[in-house]
Amino acid sequence: MKVRVAVNGFGTIGKRVAEAVSLQDDMEVIGVTKTKPDFEAKLAAKHYDLYVAIPENLSKFEKAEIEVKGTVEDLLQKADIVIDCSPNKVGAENKKLYYEKYGIKAIFQGGEKANVAEVSFNALANYEKAKGKRYVRVVSCNTTGLVRLIHTLKTNFKIGRVRATMLRRVVDPKEDKKGLVNGIMPDPVAIPSHHGPDVKTVLPDVDIVTTAFKLPTTLMHVHSLCIELKENVTVSDVVNVLEDEPRILLISEEDGFTSTAKIIEFAREVRKRYDLFENIVWRESIGIDGNDLFITQAIHQEAIVIPENVDAIRAMLEIAEKDESIEKTNTALGIPIKI
Amino acid sequence: MKVRVAVNGFGTIGKRVAEAVSLQDDMEVIGVTKTKPDFEAKLAAKHYDLYVAIPENLSKFEKAEIEVKGTVEDLLQKADIVIDCSPNKVGAENKKLYYEKYGIKAIFQGGEKANVAEVSFNALANYEKAKGKRYVRVVSCNTTGLVRLIHTLKTNFKIGRVRATMLRRVVDPKEDKKGLVNGIMPDPVAIPSHHGPDVKTVLPDVDIVTTAFKLPTTLMHVHSLCIELKENVTVSDVVNVLEDEPRILLISEEDGFTSTAKIIEFAREVRKRYDLFENIVWRESIGIDGNDLFITQAIHQEAIVIPENVDAIRAMLEIAEKDESIEKTNTALGIPIKI
Amino acid sequence: MKVRVAVNGFGTIGKRVAEAVSLQDDMEVIGVTKTKPDFEAKLAAKHYDLYVAIPENLSKFEKAEIEVKGTVEDLLQKADIVIDCSPNKVGAENKKLYYEKYGIKAIFQGGEKANVAEVSFNALANYEKAKGKRYVRVVSCNTTGLVRLIHTLKTNFKIGRVRATMLRRVVDPKEDKKGLVNGIMPDPVAIPSHHGPDVKTVLPDVDIVTTAFKLPTTLMHVHSLCIELKENVTVSDVVNVLEDEPRILLISEEDGFTSTAKIIEFAREVRKRYDLFENIVWRESIGIDGNDLFITQAIHQEAIVIPENVDAIRAMLEIAEKDESIEKTNTALGIPIKI
Amino acid sequence: MKVRVAVNGFGTIGKRVAEAVSLQDDMEVIGVTKTKPDFEAKLAAKHYDLYVAIPENLSKFEKAEIEVKGTVEDLLQKADIVIDCSPNKVGAENKKLYYEKYGIKAIFQGGEKANVAEVSFNALANYEKAKGKRYVRVVSCNTTGLVRLIHTLKTNFKIGRVRATMLRRVVDPKEDKKGLVNGIMPDPVAIPSHHGPDVKTVLPDVDIVTTAFKLPTTLMHVHSLCIELKENVTVSDVVNVLEDEPRILLISEEDGFTSTAKIIEFAREVRKRYDLFENIVWRESIGIDGNDLFITQAIHQEAIVIPENVDAIRAMLEIAEKDESIEKTNTALGIPIKI
Repeated sequence: MKVRVAVNGFGTIGKRVAEAVSLQDDMEVIGVTKTKPDFEAKLAAKHYDLYVAIPENLSKFEKAEIEVKGTVEDLLQKADIVIDCSPNKVGAENKKLYYEKYGIKAIFQGGEKANVAEVSFNALANYEKAKGKRYVRVVSCNTTGLVRLIHTLKTNFKIGRVRATMLRRVVDPKEDKKGLVNGIMPDPVAIPSHHGPDVKTVLPDVDIVTTAFKLPTTLMHVHSLCIELKENVTVSDVVNVLEDEPRILLISEEDGFTSTAKIIEFAREVRKRYDLFENIVWRESIGIDGNDLFITQAIHQEAIVIPENVDAIRAMLEIAEKDESIEKTNTALGIPIKI
Repeated sequence: MKVRVAVNGFGTIGKRVAEAVSLQDDMEVIGVTKTKPDFEAKLAAKHYDLYVAIPENLSKFEKAEIEVKGTVEDLLQKADIVIDCSPNKVGAENKKLYYEKYGIKAIFQGGEKANVAEVSFNALANYEKAKGKRYVRVVSCNTTGLVRLIHTLKTNFKIGRVRATMLRRVVDPKEDKKGLVNGIMPDPVAIPSHHGPDVKTVLPDVDIVTTAFKLPTTLMHVHSLCIELKENVTVSDVVNVLEDEPRILLISEEDGFTSTAKIIEFAREVRKRYDLFENIVWRESIGIDGNDLFITQAIHQEAIVIPENVDAIRAMLEIAEKDESIEKTNTALGIPIKI
Repeated sequence: MKVRVAVNGFGTIGKRVAEAVSLQDDMEVIGVTKTKPDFEAKLAAKHYDLYVAIPENLSKFEKAEIEVKGTVEDLLQKADIVIDCSPNKVGAENKKLYYEKYGIKAIFQGGEKANVAEVSFNALANYEKAKGKRYVRVVSCNTTGLVRLIHTLKTNFKIGRVRATMLRRVVDPKEDKKGLVNGIMPDPVAIPSHHGPDVKTVLPDVDIVTTAFKLPTTLMHVHSLCIELKENVTVSDVVNVLEDEPRILLISEEDGFTSTAKIIEFAREVRKRYDLFENIVWRESIGIDGNDLFITQAIHQEAIVIPENVDAIRAMLEIAEKDESIEKTNTALGIPIKI
Repeated sequence: MKVRVAVNGFGTIGKRVAEAVSLQDDMEVIGVTKTKPDFEAKLAAKHYDLYVAIPENLSKFEKAEIEVKGTVEDLLQKADIVIDCSPNKVGAENKKLYYEKYGIKAIFQGGEKANVAEVSFNALANYEKAKGKRYVRVVSCNTTGLVRLIHTLKTNFKIGRVRATMLRRVVDPKEDKKGLVNGIMPDPVAIPSHHGPDVKTVLPDVDIVTTAFKLPTTLMHVHSLCIELKENVTVSDVVNVLEDEPRILLISEEDGFTSTAKIIEFAREVRKRYDLFENIVWRESIGIDGNDLFITQAIHQEAIVIPENVDAIRAMLEIAEKDESIEKTNTALGIPIKI
């Protein structure tokens, strides 16, 4: 008997989550929702039972001749769990309007405030904490990228302060109204950016401060990290540890990976919609100066949280232990890619 | 017995051509070449027999532990035809160095001068002319986009002068050294841009003038066309004719296709590497004012010439008639996509 | 006795209008308004008497220690005429709220609908029509650029249909929230863009159709024009006519003007805030093919309407005839620049 | 008797240096050179005696009807000192070809290797070291920005390790051929970027590691700094110290300075070609977490080294002491701007 998963919202995250859930053998997508009848709704209807996220918009779908099976409320009544993939802050509204009403377990995304859920989640770092929980929040793309890396390092080495500069793509590739066209925007100007405190919702004992900047690019975020080492560690120690974690992929400038543009060019060959579920770490960027370890990683903001959403389902429903879930997810999604 | 195809160059065009040839039932890729041992070479070696395009670089591949089967000369001796996918102007050098020497039929890309080949080719417009030829040049992405549209219109309607403004993406997504970061560049300043004369290499009797501009974007080119109508034609006449041509896809702003960013977002869902082999025409852009027909189309520069290369093989080797070849190619490549 | 001018709004247009008015010998700026106490307000207060555009915001200015002389209503009572430089559509609101109430003559910008005023204005094309009028609208940057060029051509040659493709910078250099980061956006998709009809508010008898595209750049708009010639005209005839019009500046690719980036680099040397009040026409872009004249021009969207606003004052108050006003404005603003 | 200064190269740096020298009362520009007869050469000829940097190109200038006074060799014979403003690495060639031959003192820019000169120079940090020297190198824009800030801090506080992430504009506004259009490029991938070691050419005892990234923007660089404090310091201590240094300008997000785009918008109002000679530090970015001080600053790459070049002249010719020179330069250039 498979877990029946509802995906509320079929945008950047929702469409990836729906596909990833479909690829697992212990769960199935029983429906997805969409607010308006655009090309993404048509794609949704081709692959899934489609429900209308905003009941008042039902007639718009009829007019566009897109078949819908009902409204979000109809969908929720059939599901074991819902993954909320609606835009920032709408998740909290959905919780009040629907999820509490129908008593359904729900997973939220990192755009929501931490207090929307009982646990802020990352599969590698705190899978156990989500066990049996009703509301879980998968932390955002940047936080997921930081947590995976820091957790992997601190599990293997004694580390101290973490300082990270976050170079953020200003909008996703599909957005054509917002932006920053020519400039660099500290966001925020005052330290810290929210990423540091957000990391602490998962890894409470890390001494981390982050600064963040919006940049006129769409492809990936990049993190420039400086991490204090509190024991003797070599570059190859770090490389070995990162190579052992499937959700972290080491790439090499030598192979032609000179920028995020080249990383995406590679991903276009090997993954649908060029989705990179892994942290992408430049091997040559791993360097040590005195007690400080330096690492540069690129994060595909559209895709990195997808495996975490799948694992969160298993943890909340207690249908698999951590290692089993992560391995199942990785295998189904082809993590890690081989170069 | 399948046609044995060599693909010389495995960059933006080469890797797509190789895959498209592999998908046909009457031809096979017997090898591809690469100049340097980067990540694209590794991908090439995973799927094809790999040969070194520049014999002197053989040791670099060995050092990078990428298995190669020999040099480009070894490859050419086994092939029935070569598709030259090397950068602009290198094709002409390869012809002199290798193709003439081995007496092999060769297809060149649009970056070469027209006189590199006997025929400048577009499958819809002049398939017959390539029959039995030794050297054929598939015209460039922008020219292919213009030729398909103009040919389709002039086959169905009496048309006069064609005026097109070409809005060109300045570099491909993978390029990270060249560009235009913030500005608009007439290229060239003086009329006409080369696209008009290039169209005439395929459609000699069209009265066309083009102006062209480089723009700081990577995704697609856009053409803004104004075409004189010499008979009474309605917008729905034009829509019908374009809908009947599989290599032209009509999209609608109503479905959320507001920019090239949205078109690519759609393509990421339905095609590997988001390849769009079709001219993408905005349905609402088709308008008539007096005797002038206006059309706006977007052209995916990385992909649009791929089906034409496949058809060129069949024409040159005379293994299929025009309609049969085009249908085979379209079926194998999934042309057109359904939205 | 100088004309007492109020400038309502001190953003991109307002600050330039205020300075341009200050440079004339027959008018003076008696005050400018600002909605919020940011760095532009501080600059305003340094050079002009500053009034608060939104009376409720008075305390914010006090808190920021910026001296204000009162509210917009205080200012209007002292002025002979107001130039409304508020954002799109706010001008119409200001008219109802204030200008009608105080019976003051007002100039609006091109972001307002044509019916906000009695006349849509361009100094070269219809100065006479604004004489004595109460409400005049200076047409937008793109329309001003088109009108100047078309008016100059049609005054000298018999011309027919005009077809223009408008390549628009998506945001001004100072905007850091909106945009289009990587893509090309037809805006609108359906023909015609509003520019053609807007040209007709000034030049009613021109057969013009425009298409328009938003592009990820901030510096200048570019227009690619195709104009039907109804008599025998040579390229040098056109060059001569354009050279005779001070508000049109011919530049040459030969001098290194390869893109809008180079034009702005030049402007930075010769004009405060690199303001280009002139249409910038590439000399080499002027070409004739059959009966069609081709011209490419760049338009500095922040500056091109400034001289028109100054002339509108003189026309409305009937203090100078057309040629006298234009010459005074040109002289005061240093139009045209010499290269 | 004024110092006779030759400026060899009249590009981005050269034209600014020439103007800055002209504004001093103790030196004069006796000539500038240019390699080709473009619009920048015409501007040069309007303000200065123009010489040809590449003697073979003399006829090109004649053809373009630009008056030249001779070749670079003619110029050098009349000068007391030359400021080499040629592109990277050409300065070293000029030294060998010309400066050694004519025994002239020379100032080089930061694009040259440190060993081109006896001293790597920053006026605040090591004015004394340049006294009487024959060859001095003014460090690059990014290094100048770092040195000014670090020197000011270490003069006032005990500081330890400095970690800086350099967010670099990929090209200057006038460049329209190179770039990075959509992506983020670590440059270099391996730590450290050259900026850290370059800082040490001026401040040898600073423990600094820098990482650097190229970004698709043209306006300014941004530095995100984390500096270890070795004594008890408050944010307002830091603010006070930075406010006291005229070559560092504190700006406030509260005033609307949300990005480099807004900073440049401000600069357009107050400085020719929007030149910002000062480090631009966001006041709200100054924060302390434990022992770590965080600061974000923006650097106008085209302008920041200009005052340093002027001071280098005085130091090398020993015509003023450090404080006198800096004050003269600041006064002549209007440093600092008041907001």
